[in-house]
Amino acid sequence: MADYLAVVNGGALNALGIVKLPYSKKQLRGEEEEEEAEASHSPPSVLNATQIGGILGLSPQKTLATSTPSFPGWYADAPPAWPGEAHMFEVEKVLFHDKSQYQELLIFQSKKHGKIAVLDGFLQLSEKDEFAYQEMITHLPLCSVPNPKKVLLIGGGDGGILREISRHSSIMQVDICEIDMMVIDAYKQFFPDIAVGYKDPRVRLHVEDGVAFMRSVEEGTYDVIISDAFAQMGTGAVELADKNFLCWVARALRPGGVFCAPADSLWLNQFKVEETIAKCREVFKGSINYAWSTVPAYSSGMIGFVLCATEGPPVNFKNPINPLDIDNYGVAKGPVRFYNSEVHTAVFCLPSFARKRATSKS
Amino acid sequence: MADYLAVVNGGALNALGIVKLPYSKKQLRGEEEEEEAEASHSPPSVLNATQIGGILGLSPQKTLATSTPSFPGWYADAPPAWPGEAHMFEVEKVLFHDKSQYQELLIFQSKKHGKIAVLDGFLQLSEKDEFAYQEMITHLPLCSVPNPKKVLLIGGGDGGILREISRHSSIMQVDICEIDMMVIDAYKQFFPDIAVGYKDPRVRLHVEDGVAFMRSVEEGTYDVIISDAFAQMGTGAVELADKNFLCWVARALRPGGVFCAPADSLWLNQFKVEETIAKCREVFKGSINYAWSTVPAYSSGMIGFVLCATEGPPVNFKNPINPLDIDNYGVAKGPVRFYNSEVHTAVFCLPSFARKRATSKS
Repeated sequence: MADYLAVVNGGALNALGIVKLPYSKKQLRGEEEEEEAEASHSPPSVLNATQIGGILGLSPQKTLATSTPSFPGWYADAPPAWPGEAHMFEVEKVLFHDKSQYQELLIFQSKKHGKIAVLDGFLQLSEKDEFAYQEMITHLPLCSVPNPKKVLLIGGGDGGILREISRHSSIMQVDICEIDMMVIDAYKQFFPDIAVGYKDPRVRLHVEDGVAFMRSVEEGTYDVIISDAFAQMGTGAVELADKNFLCWVARALRPGGVFCAPADSLWLNQFKVEETIAKCREVFKGSINYAWSTVPAYSSGMIGFVLCATEGPPVNFKNPINPLDIDNYGVAKGPVRFYNSEVHTAVFCLPSFARKRATSKS
Repeated sequence: MADYLAVVNGGALNALGIVKLPYSKKQLRGEEEEEEAEASHSPPSVLNATQIGGILGLSPQKTLATSTPSFPGWYADAPPAWPGEAHMFEVEKVLFHDKSQYQELLIFQSKKHGKIAVLDGFLQLSEKDEFAYQEMITHLPLCSVPNPKKVLLIGGGDGGILREISRHSSIMQVDICEIDMMVIDAYKQFFPDIAVGYKDPRVRLHVEDGVAFMRSVEEGTYDVIISDAFAQMGTGAVELADKNFLCWVARALRPGGVFCAPADSLWLNQFKVEETIAKCREVFKGSINYAWSTVPAYSSGMIGFVLCATEGPPVNFKNPINPLDIDNYGVAKGPVRFYNSEVHTAVFCLPSFARKRATSKS
């Protein structure tokens, strides 16, 4: 049994059940680093849906001491922040499943949502709707400042945000800090239309930790910093809650520079975006706003964004002053599919139940 | 086996599997009408999640000749328009399960989404987010016309739209056509905060078919007609596609009167709202617009709305001229939780991929 690992989905065993991984027994005993090079060169284990179903299919409820739904041939997305529900996707074929020293990545071909990527049990993106997320997290900040020249992306190793940044011709330099080469390599192999972002010649890849990198750059270097760090996606914005991280972001931004990061869905029972906004306001002295977008692959069908400006030339996030040139595709194959200036303004409008908690004082 | 019926969810067996119904063998042979009175007086079958799980739990994949996910103690919402995915809700207790001559209604207490109602296998509402749907389908049309006095609701037997209509003090008369008393009675019993809409003294309940009723009223009777007919919810707006139905609606509206009905989510693969809009334009000669709202309980986490105005005083749906008095709760227990004038305007802003297909020419 030692070379079998349970696929953990938000802390609970999921529908894919037990999948054979290309791990050695040494790795399973915690000796990952020594074996890392070997693991990254191993071919990914490829199992089709029938094989996956077959492993656990006979009596899942007997082997799973959990109430998270599982069903042969389906993947269950059931993050712990969303108890009592699960979003299931039919699996056609598992394309990639591996673990680096940082995280575990699963990529499968779904039946109806294109390829789907899952990082440490959290659904990262589906090809069907990734553009909604990538476009909004990129163009909301970039269209809010005049003439952005230098951009830093923290995380976002898939390349989708880089693809979107490439549509902006004013930009001279794009730094990306992605700590995990496994993520980059896997996206280049399985999601070429997303990883295409790396083809932008303005991109400089730094395979290192974002905070370490920000400490190394001069104060006031960037017009825009976008954080796509994984921890923010499904667990209540862990890094957004880290004031130390935010201070390094603010330091790296020029006066009137802008930061954007994913935030909780406003439908989350423990929606605490007001706390995040309060914390951001302590660090960033300009406008602080919450926005959201429909992304059906994510829990509740949406995701939030926090936008923060440093003290300096005022930024009005709701009224984009740097409209996107829709004829400039950058390295993308076609025009934006989700973002437009009307939508930009609309996503700051909040339902009444969320409005008091999330609106900006500035 | 004759007194057992499979619970059909969008055409496929769902997680609740086989549940004992209070049906006689006569009913199962299709003799519903004769037995209807008896059925409606039978106590609902009450099964808790463990019992439900127990019925099918041992080897679901052996008894279900379907690929729709099922899992003991969970309800799978998997409408056929959304293949390859399912939204699962943990069931605490089944509260009601019965069938009238028109449809089958299932109500269960979910673990985290309040009570959930399912009509003929289509998820109708969850207590967690029903207000988003009910408020938007009501206030989008009512806030778009000055001083509405007479309103017709077709379907909507749960009473939630009536609850929202009650917040408008200008209204003198609310006619509701709900064909199925089972729906009304069940909502009054299990969803008192929704069925509270019936307490509005301006409401006149007509237990009959909406088209038959519209044929009986004078031309130009209503300022606003809202259709919440079930067929539109999950199957591609069946009745919206029925030009005959739309003609009766247009006839019953005054010049410059307004019609609102649910429409497909813009994430639906076969999103054909442009066809619906074209059809509406043939019948209604005023503004035609598509809007949408986040409602996590529905597939893709959202639902669309079509708004149509008849020829007459022009209606600009995007700019509400009849703002809601938020201090007037009507028969509701508190203020609106979702709708506000900002959101009203924002929900007409569409992502680029949907904009060409759904925007109004007027």
